[in-house]
Amino acid sequence: VSVTYARGFTAAGVTAGVKPSGQPDLGLLVGRPGPTAAGVFTTNRLQAAPVRLSRARLEAGRASAVVVNSGQANAATGEAGDEAARRLADAAASSLGLDIDAMLTASTGVIGEPLHLDELLRAVPLAVESLSPEGGDAFARAIMTTDTTRKQASAEAGELRVGGCAKGVGMVAPNLATMLAFVTTDASVSPEDLDALTRSRIAPAFEAITIDGCASTNDTVLVFASGAAGGVRGERGVAAWASLGDALEEVATSLARQLIADGEGVTHVMLVAVEGAPDDGSARRVARAIADSPLVKTAVFGSDPNPGRVVQAVGAAGIDVDASAIDAWIGNAQVVTAGVIPPAYFSGGAIREAAMIGMKEPEVRFRVRIGDGPGSSRILGGDLSYEYVRINGEYTT
Amino acid sequence: VSVTYARGFTAAGVTAGVKPSGQPDLGLLVGRPGPTAAGVFTTNRLQAAPVRLSRARLEAGRASAVVVNSGQANAATGEAGDEAARRLADAAASSLGLDIDAMLTASTGVIGEPLHLDELLRAVPLAVESLSPEGGDAFARAIMTTDTTRKQASAEAGELRVGGCAKGVGMVAPNLATMLAFVTTDASVSPEDLDALTRSRIAPAFEAITIDGCASTNDTVLVFASGAAGGVRGERGVAAWASLGDALEEVATSLARQLIADGEGVTHVMLVAVEGAPDDGSARRVARAIADSPLVKTAVFGSDPNPGRVVQAVGAAGIDVDASAIDAWIGNAQVVTAGVIPPAYFSGGAIREAAMIGMKEPEVRFRVRIGDGPGSSRILGGDLSYEYVRINGEYTT
Repeated sequence: VSVTYARGFTAAGVTAGVKPSGQPDLGLLVGRPGPTAAGVFTTNRLQAAPVRLSRARLEAGRASAVVVNSGQANAATGEAGDEAARRLADAAASSLGLDIDAMLTASTGVIGEPLHLDELLRAVPLAVESLSPEGGDAFARAIMTTDTTRKQASAEAGELRVGGCAKGVGMVAPNLATMLAFVTTDASVSPEDLDALTRSRIAPAFEAITIDGCASTNDTVLVFASGAAGGVRGERGVAAWASLGDALEEVATSLARQLIADGEGVTHVMLVAVEGAPDDGSARRVARAIADSPLVKTAVFGSDPNPGRVVQAVGAAGIDVDASAIDAWIGNAQVVTAGVIPPAYFSGGAIREAAMIGMKEPEVRFRVRIGDGPGSSRILGGDLSYEYVRINGEYTT
Repeated sequence: VSVTYARGFTAAGVTAGVKPSGQPDLGLLVGRPGPTAAGVFTTNRLQAAPVRLSRARLEAGRASAVVVNSGQANAATGEAGDEAARRLADAAASSLGLDIDAMLTASTGVIGEPLHLDELLRAVPLAVESLSPEGGDAFARAIMTTDTTRKQASAEAGELRVGGCAKGVGMVAPNLATMLAFVTTDASVSPEDLDALTRSRIAPAFEAITIDGCASTNDTVLVFASGAAGGVRGERGVAAWASLGDALEEVATSLARQLIADGEGVTHVMLVAVEGAPDDGSARRVARAIADSPLVKTAVFGSDPNPGRVVQAVGAAGIDVDASAIDAWIGNAQVVTAGVIPPAYFSGGAIREAAMIGMKEPEVRFRVRIGDGPGSSRILGGDLSYEYVRINGEYTT
């Protein structure tokens, strides 16, 4: 159950000493002999140096490995940051005897702080020596920042294997949760097909989560296909295509849920389902407005079944909605009918009891119908707790 | 220093008993003989019943009084809510011997809970009896919900007086902070001119504040001009026009600042100034993205001078920005230069010291230049504290 579950991959995680905590901070993931790769990246306009480098090298089409550091994000670091990202990647490629273009890179940590390049470069040979088919756990450990657990997943599609790991518990938002995720498969997949699978089966799982609505400068999802499973091809039209897609989606969905469950200060996962919108995009805006509303998030934290805050968020989402077309549920309790919260709701009674039960479940479910259109969306989020404030009020100090 | 400072207005605040706290909950503000009125309202698509009623009656052009209740928002209450708002307003008009069209209404409190109409109707005669030119304080008291202080202001423009009061400490967002505000003047102003003054001199002050980014269903700003100042006309072209506008803006700005200072859990006011944008709208989007970012808000709470979170918010604002054009300051310390946070920043030093001082001021100032365009914007916000989570996790329970 790790990123090296798929055959053809080795990984390592070591301690370069660039994190104040002294925890492992340098990860290396390598596919042999030369896998195909695809990636999706943050939509933040201010992309970190490693994001720019990896995007550019992916276009060259020869990527087969990635070196990752945690501790510094290497964002808002200017040309010196680009140079540092390049030197780290080149050192890793050179130690492995790979073409420079084959090495991607990703970083996570404090924005603005320069990479501690000397320490990282010193640790690269150690990471290379440590590479192992059992190295997935160590790799998943080395990419963590405020994470409290490793996030790993695996799945199978007949003969084919899929593995993956991820990190990221804060600055997590739609359009790629602020996070790093690495997914591997031993299928043989062309670069074009791998890109299509990444966009259709992997990216949506990460785009459907939000912790605090803040899209980071460093979000990166990289996908590698080694072809080591005896040449079983994942390509459009063959039988394995659909089942490979399912396995990739299973791994991505598992990783996304693990990210939310370990979200900073999250005590309850929140699942927001919106239906009946004119289109999926409108439904997504409404679902995000609910999942990112600090009033809804604090209500979830306090187990307070407050339908008015859901109504407020729907109305403020920037979508044209008709009040009388709105129905909403908390758990199994219908708390809004044709735009109206039942008056009896405020004097207790069965609906409020049922909503209260829904608010106390580990996964609090909101369902909102805003009309009879075909559009729908589901977003996974978390509550807003004292602990979120504590973690983020004390992060760098 | 109250909403009755302007001549020609009486006000009252009484206890109808519709708030669990037993605090005053019914306010009445009346202009004599028949002032002109103007208003601006929430942009939330799901507008409360009193908002719909007041909008419609303002169009009739004869409004001269407003009855306000706190405790229930009368939103998400359907047709029964419209009927209740109408009955409350009509009862107040009838008690005063006013035309029905002359009475506006506003509500604030829990969304969905029906108006406690019986109690309110019983208290209307008491409110009418209590009307007094010294009633502004009681009125300001009666409209409070989780507010801890009354918000009142006054200003003068030569012979003319301007008064005002407001309430609102949560669900406060751009496009009219979630709040009620009432501004009066004893100038004689035509309905068209009063509408123009409201939009140009009063609304911008409230649109420039945000507490939690949540636009409410009930936001209402009402402005009345009694003409009681001996017929001094406020009209375009006369000398008094500009000074009357200044006085209205002074009152609105004072009320907006008081709202932020009493924002739920706010320990530090945050002033975000963005300049160099292609246009004011783009600057506003960036300023809001910073002021509403939970990561920036928790950093302000923790006095943590974290420029990376400002950079993240700028990049995620949905505006096309060039990293190398970004300069940013915390207080007097320049923490980002041409898109780069100075490397020395992370090993202490003078800039970090200065930024730390800036973070500890009661009003934390962020200034961001994103290019050399003509667009600029200023937003006033507050930090995100344990207390915000406590208040909003426990609101209705």
